[in-house]
Amino acid sequence: MRAGGRTARVRTAVLEAALHELAAGGYAALSIERIAERSGVHKTTIYRRWQSKEAVLAEAVGDLVESLFPIQVTGEIDRDLRVFARALVDLLTSDAPLVVGAVRALFSDAAHDPRIAELKRELYARRYDEARAIVQAAIDRSELPPDTDTRELIGLITAPIYYRFLVTQEPLDHAVADRTAATALIAVRAGACRLG
Amino acid sequence: MRAGGRTARVRTAVLEAALHELAAGGYAALSIERIAERSGVHKTTIYRRWQSKEAVLAEAVGDLVESLFPIQVTGEIDRDLRVFARALVDLLTSDAPLVVGAVRALFSDAAHDPRIAELKRELYARRYDEARAIVQAAIDRSELPPDTDTRELIGLITAPIYYRFLVTQEPLDHAVADRTAATALIAVRAGACRLG
Repeated sequence: MRAGGRTARVRTAVLEAALHELAAGGYAALSIERIAERSGVHKTTIYRRWQSKEAVLAEAVGDLVESLFPIQVTGEIDRDLRVFARALVDLLTSDAPLVVGAVRALFSDAAHDPRIAELKRELYARRYDEARAIVQAAIDRSELPPDTDTRELIGLITAPIYYRFLVTQEPLDHAVADRTAATALIAVRAGACRLG
Repeated sequence: MRAGGRTARVRTAVLEAALHELAAGGYAALSIERIAERSGVHKTTIYRRWQSKEAVLAEAVGDLVESLFPIQVTGEIDRDLRVFARALVDLLTSDAPLVVGAVRALFSDAAHDPRIAELKRELYARRYDEARAIVQAAIDRSELPPDTDTRELIGLITAPIYYRFLVTQEPLDHAVADRTAATALIAVRAGACRLG
């Protein structure tokens, strides 16, 4: 499969159509038929490659998150965690319709659907795997202890941001992101977030 | 108003009926008429005292949370924070229908309703005020620095628990609660969660 070939074009068209449909009508209204109509790709082609609307959605949302919120390793853990926290804040507070639609699908009642729950589990598992690069690089530079628990450290940054977003509905901005990253670093340097 | 008098009996009947209605039909189906019917209290009496279904709900959910999840000051900050974290886990994982109904109303799509959002803001503001007692007692015993930010410290405990509950949907138990409380304490003792 060449990146610029027909397969890639079909993939891009389908995933973009899925995000547009999601933004327009939500998860419940999303269907392979609607994605086929909007993308111009025949629905049998979509079924053959993805099998279900959830599989399309998983790939579309995964791509969206990774393009807006890449995991970056800059060579300094303070900076990496701050960049990470700011990127999450930017994603959650984005007013771009496709992003709003995707965030709503992941955190509205649709999220109770077992297939959306599974999609989220996979998405978070992949993100944690990627975030391990930040922590490993910091361990290699002796900025963090070797037994740092990546998942717990990353959770210490993401949890307070999601908490404000979903629970207390307090405002989110870069100052909140920076403070969250700073608190997580204080904790991990003082002995928190250890494996085992 | 005597605590055991008619006013108190009416209040209890109305608030209990509201929680039962909420558990049975969700926020959208809740109405003063339904509450009146279930409680046996005339709807004009309910309207006179509460004005709206949201006002009844705010009081009912507030009472429920405070009865299941009292803020306790035991004389040791480690223990207080652990008890607090465990109580939150117990509340969120309860399978008692009235609790499940209330939690669903606060964190489902109904939460986008501005009146539910306002109810949540008030509920959290009151809980933070109460939690200040835990932190102040610890400051008085020199277990925490005098400029500890209660809201940020409490958020450091509640955020990871809600994060698992609402975002990653990982299991919640007392081990998670204890670890969360321990991490928050490490952070605050190392210099995090300071006012200003």
